[in-house]
Amino acid sequence: MIIGQSFIHGSREAIHAVNPVTGERLGPAYPGAGPQEVDRACALAEQAFDAYRETTQEARAEFLEQVSENLADTRLEIVERANLETGLPNPRLEGELTRTINQLRLFARETRSGRCIGATVETALPDRAPLPRPDIRLRYVPLGPALIFGASNFPLAFSVAGGDTASALAAGCPVVVKGHSAHPGTSELVGLCIAKAIKTTGMPEGTFSLLFGSGNEIGASLAADPRIKAIGFTGSRSGGLALMNIAAARAEPIPVYAEMSSVNPVYLLPEALKGRADSIAAGLSNSMLMGSGQFCTNPGLLIARADANLASFSTTLADLVAAAQPSTMLTSDIYQAFESGVARLLKNPHVELLAKAGDKSGPNQCRAHLFATTAQSFLADPSLHDEIFGSCSLIIRCKTNEEMLELTAALDGQLTATVMMDQDDDSSFVRRLLKVLERKVGRILFNGYPTGVEVGHAMVHGGPFPATSNSRTTSVGTEALWRFLRPVCYQNFPHDLLPESLKDGSSTPQRVTF
Amino acid sequence: MIIGQSFIHGSREAIHAVNPVTGERLGPAYPGAGPQEVDRACALAEQAFDAYRETTQEARAEFLEQVSENLADTRLEIVERANLETGLPNPRLEGELTRTINQLRLFARETRSGRCIGATVETALPDRAPLPRPDIRLRYVPLGPALIFGASNFPLAFSVAGGDTASALAAGCPVVVKGHSAHPGTSELVGLCIAKAIKTTGMPEGTFSLLFGSGNEIGASLAADPRIKAIGFTGSRSGGLALMNIAAARAEPIPVYAEMSSVNPVYLLPEALKGRADSIAAGLSNSMLMGSGQFCTNPGLLIARADANLASFSTTLADLVAAAQPSTMLTSDIYQAFESGVARLLKNPHVELLAKAGDKSGPNQCRAHLFATTAQSFLADPSLHDEIFGSCSLIIRCKTNEEMLELTAALDGQLTATVMMDQDDDSSFVRRLLKVLERKVGRILFNGYPTGVEVGHAMVHGGPFPATSNSRTTSVGTEALWRFLRPVCYQNFPHDLLPESLKDGSSTPQRVTF
Repeated sequence: MIIGQSFIHGSREAIHAVNPVTGERLGPAYPGAGPQEVDRACALAEQAFDAYRETTQEARAEFLEQVSENLADTRLEIVERANLETGLPNPRLEGELTRTINQLRLFARETRSGRCIGATVETALPDRAPLPRPDIRLRYVPLGPALIFGASNFPLAFSVAGGDTASALAAGCPVVVKGHSAHPGTSELVGLCIAKAIKTTGMPEGTFSLLFGSGNEIGASLAADPRIKAIGFTGSRSGGLALMNIAAARAEPIPVYAEMSSVNPVYLLPEALKGRADSIAAGLSNSMLMGSGQFCTNPGLLIARADANLASFSTTLADLVAAAQPSTMLTSDIYQAFESGVARLLKNPHVELLAKAGDKSGPNQCRAHLFATTAQSFLADPSLHDEIFGSCSLIIRCKTNEEMLELTAALDGQLTATVMMDQDDDSSFVRRLLKVLERKVGRILFNGYPTGVEVGHAMVHGGPFPATSNSRTTSVGTEALWRFLRPVCYQNFPHDLLPESLKDGSSTPQRVTF
Repeated sequence: MIIGQSFIHGSREAIHAVNPVTGERLGPAYPGAGPQEVDRACALAEQAFDAYRETTQEARAEFLEQVSENLADTRLEIVERANLETGLPNPRLEGELTRTINQLRLFARETRSGRCIGATVETALPDRAPLPRPDIRLRYVPLGPALIFGASNFPLAFSVAGGDTASALAAGCPVVVKGHSAHPGTSELVGLCIAKAIKTTGMPEGTFSLLFGSGNEIGASLAADPRIKAIGFTGSRSGGLALMNIAAARAEPIPVYAEMSSVNPVYLLPEALKGRADSIAAGLSNSMLMGSGQFCTNPGLLIARADANLASFSTTLADLVAAAQPSTMLTSDIYQAFESGVARLLKNPHVELLAKAGDKSGPNQCRAHLFATTAQSFLADPSLHDEIFGSCSLIIRCKTNEEMLELTAALDGQLTATVMMDQDDDSSFVRRLLKVLERKVGRILFNGYPTGVEVGHAMVHGGPFPATSNSRTTSVGTEALWRFLRPVCYQNFPHDLLPESLKDGSSTPQRVTF
């Protein structure tokens, strides 16, 4: 564990990584945090907050850039260890580390721009009738120490120095990370990159800590700690709901940004299926198979009109799935959950198995499955709406366009929806579909695949419940910063007591109203 | 009641307004809504949502402006009825109606500007390595039907057509108002202004409904209705907490924007007290007495160093309070709560009564009270931190600056904090104080009075719990719009299927990144 600038061995039961490819336990042991370590990390974060939030945007940008440099310098060790702990192939981990580095740099640029201060200046109108207007100025300030949970499925981009951490640090919030138990070694290597950057750039010690712990106890006690003011989480629906309940029951309730579950419907329109069934099948099988399907945006539902084109497409996709190699999942728990989800579909009399991938050759291997059902069955059976985390997709055959709309209206909130459409497809139907989808999802995409989330200013990785606990935000992209900020108004301040960003002639971008 | 374009008599127990000045029940009866009326209002709102959210910003602006015109045309009737139902004097109600009208116009302008669409455009980079960037575009869309509770203390500016309603309608959310039982006639007159504007400007019928009901049952069933997607509330802490619990327990949790309780500390620095004790005492007595102190931003705590200047200031303020006329409170419930709050302080052995206003001459009259205690007593007794809604302030005598900081750190979240400071006051101490206050409050003001909230772009009427349920927002000013919006990303859209605001060359302001 890392608490501030101290490398600490916890006092509680240790966690060990397990190589999911072999099932073997990896050394070393990572002792878990006890109440003392929780208290120490929160106390340091609280202590750091005032100094950290007062650092300039430039200083915070440099800190984030230093973290990214340290990650780049540690690339080989991080990728090697992450490969052992997650079973993910090196090229994927290389790519993910690059994304993590670029993400930190993007947040550094956004912080430097000063845009997220949201500075707004309304100068006094002393002669206004019937009442004069006082000088009022607004800026956004950070919430306080944030608790971030490492995610298993993105051991770099959504773990210790991932998107949640980057956005909270950029906003000015110290971060306490509860490291994911599946990759403690990776977490520690990355955590050291942050701790070193804190030292190099002179940030306050408590700006970052990393705690380990088996089970849910440490996460729960961190979430309940009064010094923690916001929570970022990517993981299961049950985990997210547990955190929401803890946060709501606190003496001071705090916001929880939990990204939880999504089945990411893909709509295959008739002309698209007719004209390019093979390329769509290839693209979709790639999207559902990659990383053993362990993506929040994995395409879990494929929705189309039940016609000859769909039949032929289904055969093509089934062949690709049947030919797929089984691949190792991240953890034994995830593998077990996948198996039981698949078993549930296999037992369902209204669901047809179209294909499954070849035999396993090792532990924790995901065999991709492709199923089919009808819209009527899907509408009648809520269990078919649940996410199965892994390479498993369900084709839904619709009799009519109206049925497709009805089905869409019955979906839970989702991270994404995808429309495969060609020029000759019925655009008036698509417009109706989009109206329904806009209320259900955070991102709608055309003629692409939902996996592979661009990190930019216009990205939304979010969506209505249960995709997330808070549809008004995103966990990917620069809009994520606003999750950790709140507005404060400064009325009739002596000019020299105003924050720099709100002074007349400040270099921070200001919305000025006269 | 008003449900869409229908004027309906409810099927449940009626509510009656009571003239608080006389205690007499006023006609007519306003029958309460039953489950059928709740269902009908929610169904209409849901039905209206798609059409309403697709109206242009210009059309929504014109609708809001039409509401404001209708209010102006009904000014005499509204003020007359509000005066009967609330006991508030006509000039106050005139001013509040003007504020309500201006508020609607401000939101109309903000909507028209397109700023709250938050349009962000990142065009494709097909040649980017290692992966091309897709075209991604973001806009904010409305959440869905909003439930707004009328507030008793602002029967116009925070009731049926008040700030919450204006911001939700401006954002594109249909609104169902649960009218406050203390002013049903005023609510109905104002509701008719909205309903008429809907007809005149061709908005969908279900864009607005107004329901009455005695007790909490109607509000609770509206809050639990799955078609409601956000809640706006100004009122008691217990009421806000009840709504937070209902919202969190829903199958789909929704955001609650509850503005609850605040004691609005005022810091009186030594030089300011020395130089202008009389004018500060006059200003503070005015701020605490006006409207019987029934303001969320009423100055409940006056904090100063215990010295001769404070002693003399206290005497001056006590004289003003003692000379004050008792004034009628809004409702008998509010009056009872005030009386029991004051009784609690009177019984407290560590609290000294400095002054109380003269004898009452009618029912429900608030006699202003001024108390004093020490910082040590305040720190030791959590009950002294609770809001007493009405004209009641507590002077807190501090021995040292450090004690003042300690006291500040122990305060709950607040809507406002005020600093009375002169040039010769110790600015380095004030800087330390501001650092603590910034974490506790939504608005800090200098040398002014917290009552009288400017409605503008830079206003924050919000703050950490328990001032509000969500510190990241404001319920006054144009930033309030964002409470009812969520981001959606449009990836690789065929250009003609994009929302108008995201098309190339749109007149909507866009943040464009290349």
